[in-house]
Amino acid sequence: MSSREKQILALNAFGDRPLTGLAEDVSALVARRRKSFGAASVLFYEEPLKMLRAEGARMYASDGRAYLDFYNNVPTVGHCHPKVVEAVQKQIETLNIHSRYLFDISHDYAEKLLATYPAALSNLVLVCTGSEANDLALRIARKASGGTGFVVTETAYHGNTAAVTEVSPSSYKTGAPPAHVRTVPAPDPAIYGMDIVGGFAAAVEEAIAAMKADGIEPAGLLVDTIFSSDGVYADPPGFLAPAVEVMRRSGGVYIADEVQPGFARTGAGMWGFARHGVEPDIVTMGKPMGNGYPIAGLVTRPELLSAFCDDFGYFNTFAASPVATAAAMAVLEAIEEDGLIANAARVGAHLTQRLEALRQQVPTMAAVRGAGLYLGVEFRTADDEPAPEIATGLINGLREHGILIGAAGRYGNTLKIRPPLCVTEADTDLLVDAMADLLT
Amino acid sequence: MSSREKQILALNAFGDRPLTGLAEDVSALVARRRKSFGAASVLFYEEPLKMLRAEGARMYASDGRAYLDFYNNVPTVGHCHPKVVEAVQKQIETLNIHSRYLFDISHDYAEKLLATYPAALSNLVLVCTGSEANDLALRIARKASGGTGFVVTETAYHGNTAAVTEVSPSSYKTGAPPAHVRTVPAPDPAIYGMDIVGGFAAAVEEAIAAMKADGIEPAGLLVDTIFSSDGVYADPPGFLAPAVEVMRRSGGVYIADEVQPGFARTGAGMWGFARHGVEPDIVTMGKPMGNGYPIAGLVTRPELLSAFCDDFGYFNTFAASPVATAAAMAVLEAIEEDGLIANAARVGAHLTQRLEALRQQVPTMAAVRGAGLYLGVEFRTADDEPAPEIATGLINGLREHGILIGAAGRYGNTLKIRPPLCVTEADTDLLVDAMADLLT
Repeated sequence: MSSREKQILALNAFGDRPLTGLAEDVSALVARRRKSFGAASVLFYEEPLKMLRAEGARMYASDGRAYLDFYNNVPTVGHCHPKVVEAVQKQIETLNIHSRYLFDISHDYAEKLLATYPAALSNLVLVCTGSEANDLALRIARKASGGTGFVVTETAYHGNTAAVTEVSPSSYKTGAPPAHVRTVPAPDPAIYGMDIVGGFAAAVEEAIAAMKADGIEPAGLLVDTIFSSDGVYADPPGFLAPAVEVMRRSGGVYIADEVQPGFARTGAGMWGFARHGVEPDIVTMGKPMGNGYPIAGLVTRPELLSAFCDDFGYFNTFAASPVATAAAMAVLEAIEEDGLIANAARVGAHLTQRLEALRQQVPTMAAVRGAGLYLGVEFRTADDEPAPEIATGLINGLREHGILIGAAGRYGNTLKIRPPLCVTEADTDLLVDAMADLLT
Repeated sequence: MSSREKQILALNAFGDRPLTGLAEDVSALVARRRKSFGAASVLFYEEPLKMLRAEGARMYASDGRAYLDFYNNVPTVGHCHPKVVEAVQKQIETLNIHSRYLFDISHDYAEKLLATYPAALSNLVLVCTGSEANDLALRIARKASGGTGFVVTETAYHGNTAAVTEVSPSSYKTGAPPAHVRTVPAPDPAIYGMDIVGGFAAAVEEAIAAMKADGIEPAGLLVDTIFSSDGVYADPPGFLAPAVEVMRRSGGVYIADEVQPGFARTGAGMWGFARHGVEPDIVTMGKPMGNGYPIAGLVTRPELLSAFCDDFGYFNTFAASPVATAAAMAVLEAIEEDGLIANAARVGAHLTQRLEALRQQVPTMAAVRGAGLYLGVEFRTADDEPAPEIATGLINGLREHGILIGAAGRYGNTLKIRPPLCVTEADTDLLVDAMADLLT
């Protein structure tokens, strides 16, 4: 089995399995889905779940059961959070237009969001998806640097446009990214040994040298600051700084992709990059930004945005609308009012402790990594080989225990723990107890 | 003044004008906007409008006035249409998740939408924006054709990603699209004379030959089927077919961009391509699809989608969500229940007739073009030169008359009439009376 096949297995897709044995309502829907949505449709689980409603950290399925959500970071303040629901309901019956007319809410939102960033990052561009944010970031970086090449990690995922797929090696089922994209291994101690800091910076330096040798000038280093699709690598805090220095010395910029770690998830503040003590040139945001309402964005320094706008017109019809920014404003307020940074820190610490305790009893649990409520649990065989089959078994086993979860990493052997930030310590106990039940 | 400068003038941007003379609430907001949103922010009008609420074909501004909307095709069934509002309000408090779990509404929607298409176009991919739809269409076309080159019109606009900007010559403030993109003049009688059909096909053939001479194989012909950003060219129906034939003989596909003409606007059915009697290989949809809720998509033949998916994983987090598809379903139902295809035809015919009558009295009104409720009125000077200053003057003059409108075309000299489809004949009378007042 190739590493890509292992990964697809771990992505836990229903794929082209036969419909026999599924509940009647589920099999009927899967048949219709195949007909309408064809090859691009991805469906979770050996026995897919049909959902009816959701609230807080729980989804309620057509089988009559409640499922505790440890997978979804989009509903970051909780499924159907009343504050976000009310903001959208109120705004959508009043005004929902594009931003070439004026209205208050987008300006209120921009100021509140920008206040969470270093002062130099004072311009915001609102878009609809993380993919659009990263696509625009690549273009701004190219203009700012004069270069075209990007350095990303081996299993990076940054989105789904043509340009962003090129910097997302994990999206390639065959072939590999083009010559202007160079990859470095994830900041994994198994690869770099004890010196993650020096090793990762050296890898970036080598990638830049190889690029230049082929006549390609670097435009930037683009990394998810918690390296989620690589398998979740958060430590030691600060390890990114020397790699960023290397890129800047070569004329490129640093783009921090906060689609995964952003909006309070790490428990150490609003943004994942802050843990690394180095200020990005561009920061992109996505998934949790509107708690499910499509909104995303980037922040950067005014001169970088202005230079890009000298060359191209940029307008995004649905972005920065009153409804999108009302939803996003409610998310910022809910993070504050519900104390979600502190909750991510406290509940994340409790969960980490319990997982570490379980690891003492389960030899295949090779590592527990992460920050706040973004954790990765890596599984390896007795021969120290990646064990995606354990991760996939757990995903389907936990589904039977009423818990939703996923996997990540080059071999899909890392359980990805990424719940709505409103989960409680008791919720995490349910997860670890179920894991213990399945693993011991 | 360059053609691009003329166009920018016609885009009617507030730009970097001083804030003096503006209403206090407006100038305060513009100052905040410049600080937060920087160079990428585009604002309409010499005196920007601050909007408070909207309903049907009218928006209500902070100056206490109602503005009749002849600009916006996103709220296609009417601003804050009660059916769409209710669908979003109900769904967002119940369930809003991604599509790797099952739920009914996205399947109901896909089937209802696909039923409006030729049977061969049986697969739907839902995305969030028209830009994402066109970006994906380019990739599917490349895989299907084996080529990389695209033919588009000179003033085309298809969206804002890196790849889609390359096929959007109107987005370039400096420079021009790369070598794999070749442009042909819009289907304008002033260029092709009486034989639009043969002339446009010959232009496409020449563009393909030039591309091949440079070693680039064609991937497709991408056109907005009402050529809106080119200045609105709809006639004679069927003129596209020979150009499509030329592209197909060269191995490329035909992508119909229905972001502008789609969803009943032409008054002749749901889709603009139908007027041309030739079936696209890929159709992209956007703006009106969710009446302002961000949803877009493409339809294609299953084998084209499947071939693309052999190479790449594609998933779009916010697309195909219960809320997005509930909004889009309500739009399809409103188009039916409110009889909007018939309304677009009837009101569009009345408006065309009245504009033609006005044209007899106004020598600078060079042409009235279009279909249904997508009309273009071209202005030229006595010396038969493009007259963007008349279009821009009208845009600002009509604002004073309480009417919102825009311009399009290579020189920005074509008034672009594109109201919500719920406008009445009385509404169009208000527009033409105000135009008469300003022009005579």
